[in-house]
Amino acid sequence: MPGRPPPPLLCADTHRSADALYFGQVAVPDAFVSFGLKGKKYAIVSALEFGRVRKTSDFDVVLPLEGFIKRARELWPERKPGLAEVIYLAARDYKQQRFTVPADFPAGIYEQLFELGLDLVVADGALFPEREIKTPAEAAAIREGNRCSALGFAAAEKILRASRIQGRTLRHRGKVVTSEMLKFAIEVACLEAGAVSADTIVAGGDQACDPHERGSGPIRPHELVIVDIFPRVTATGYHGDMTRTFLRGRASDAQRALVAAVRAAQLAALKAIKAGVNGRDVHRRCVDVFTARGYETKSTPRGSVGFFHGTGHGLGLAVHELPRLSGAVDYTVPKGSVVTVEPGLYYPGLGGCRIEDVVQVTAGAPKMLSRYSYDWEL
Amino acid sequence: MPGRPPPPLLCADTHRSADALYFGQVAVPDAFVSFGLKGKKYAIVSALEFGRVRKTSDFDVVLPLEGFIKRARELWPERKPGLAEVIYLAARDYKQQRFTVPADFPAGIYEQLFELGLDLVVADGALFPEREIKTPAEAAAIREGNRCSALGFAAAEKILRASRIQGRTLRHRGKVVTSEMLKFAIEVACLEAGAVSADTIVAGGDQACDPHERGSGPIRPHELVIVDIFPRVTATGYHGDMTRTFLRGRASDAQRALVAAVRAAQLAALKAIKAGVNGRDVHRRCVDVFTARGYETKSTPRGSVGFFHGTGHGLGLAVHELPRLSGAVDYTVPKGSVVTVEPGLYYPGLGGCRIEDVVQVTAGAPKMLSRYSYDWEL
Repeated sequence: MPGRPPPPLLCADTHRSADALYFGQVAVPDAFVSFGLKGKKYAIVSALEFGRVRKTSDFDVVLPLEGFIKRARELWPERKPGLAEVIYLAARDYKQQRFTVPADFPAGIYEQLFELGLDLVVADGALFPEREIKTPAEAAAIREGNRCSALGFAAAEKILRASRIQGRTLRHRGKVVTSEMLKFAIEVACLEAGAVSADTIVAGGDQACDPHERGSGPIRPHELVIVDIFPRVTATGYHGDMTRTFLRGRASDAQRALVAAVRAAQLAALKAIKAGVNGRDVHRRCVDVFTARGYETKSTPRGSVGFFHGTGHGLGLAVHELPRLSGAVDYTVPKGSVVTVEPGLYYPGLGGCRIEDVVQVTAGAPKMLSRYSYDWEL
Repeated sequence: MPGRPPPPLLCADTHRSADALYFGQVAVPDAFVSFGLKGKKYAIVSALEFGRVRKTSDFDVVLPLEGFIKRARELWPERKPGLAEVIYLAARDYKQQRFTVPADFPAGIYEQLFELGLDLVVADGALFPEREIKTPAEAAAIREGNRCSALGFAAAEKILRASRIQGRTLRHRGKVVTSEMLKFAIEVACLEAGAVSADTIVAGGDQACDPHERGSGPIRPHELVIVDIFPRVTATGYHGDMTRTFLRGRASDAQRALVAAVRAAQLAALKAIKAGVNGRDVHRRCVDVFTARGYETKSTPRGSVGFFHGTGHGLGLAVHELPRLSGAVDYTVPKGSVVTVEPGLYYPGLGGCRIEDVVQVTAGAPKMLSRYSYDWEL
């Protein structure tokens, strides 16, 4: 019988580490030390954070960093004391020599603590496996994120619908419609709703064939435009993540077939998602739809074409987290987890299409946590 | 004579790692492998990123991740291959067994590579020490970030000036002026200018006495309001970081003395900043100004009062980077580095004041990279 893992130890700011945010339920912009011990949560923070963390966080005990630094200076007059020394002293105070650290724990501190004699075990998988299973409150927070994404689509769609087609140009209130214009409208809509949408993607034509290309310059009529919005709700830290593909003007038969294939793949994946399914099998459903319709995936020296990314990923405090729905990994999707479902097809010359929604996994049909129309030909 | 350090190895996404962004000059949202070898830069990325990174980055060689994963599966059929196996194979291909990794390299991969026999040296200090010295293009990018901060102040100031004082309430166009209203105006102004301002601070009254409290609820007349804006310019990834303290209504003598002391401390620090100075001595100038004027710094069980944070920090692709101007560290400030100068005083009951500007360090007087009025009583 395996023993219980040692208690968790973190050394990270909450922007870089969703684990640190999950653990303490408070945003701290600089790296700080936190750990668990006998069911209680401890944080060591500087005077800059002390009052706020004490008042608003989930930590049971908040200790001032400065006291540890002072003691470290006395103990090792020849060293520049840092967070490794602070952790060492705290571990000694609490008589706890073993901790579990996340895989992204900083190697520099890991090495120093090893030399100081602490016994750190790197978590095999998630540090907090329970983060993968979303409580009703977390699901609601993600739904709120997706509501912000949807407000973004509405803002972009409004401009596209109201724009005039003049040759290869779209004009709105006299201005050329660009990726930048649409992103601005989307990001303002998210801000108004209390979320920050960074790195919003509005990519038209061949730009959209690089799935992480954010897009720039004029949006052309009669071309597919991928709009991917993954805002972070400021009050909770949880994200939405939705994608729609629009086209202003008249679509060709090939474009219509492409969009229909992507939506069919998404529906096939949604049908396959339930507690206990392997993410690889969900991904397979999309691949099968594309193969049956003759959409080939291949890599070329200039990049890949077809469907060359995973079908989905977990969503929560991080935009990308567990579980994964991908051909590349063998992963069992648990009940209560929240995943994106976002097949896509990309062919330079024809364009790209991706449609993304978010569901919570149940024993039966998944629960939709995102909602926006699938009308795309505007 | 010390040997040359082994070439750099990174395994991070560019949101979490400013080093990774600096090295490849391209944003990649998921962790990826990059390394240097004989003056060339290498990246290993998935099909999702391949075309875009190949076209737009500073990498000399871009290798497809999928090929490495396939080889790793063949070599170790019993393992789930991850980025550690990918790095091991790349190191073998290029006959390079030693690398320097940054202090924030993930401990999980560090440990796996150790077991696979790679020799990793954790950088003592910065992985790219040259990141601390800003080129003219980088200084211009930071100046642009500060221009966005200044547009944010202008937006907030406009609302405060136009607001009506009704007892303990400020009203603007019929609405109660709140931290949220001002933050929205600031963040829209930043978006319009091409920058994302996340975690903007607009904190009035005693809220401002926790320096990292973002602020919420009504802004009261006759109270000090700290506004701290550190936007990230989307096109370059560089940040601005400026703070002003405003008051709508009529300030008390104690508030005026507080603001005057903070500005005097800032000017004293600015006077002391030049190439080769110790950051601790710059910080000391602020402390001396406050001490001479009778402002005491002390920690209480509920938090600290007075001046209890550092005077400044480096600014660039990260909001907080080297050098540091702090009483807690011994750090020589090099020519060409860019630092914030941001003394502050915080006394619950009276309120908080912080004034922050950004300069580039020269052999003589520092070069201002930020500009906004110091008028504060509105």
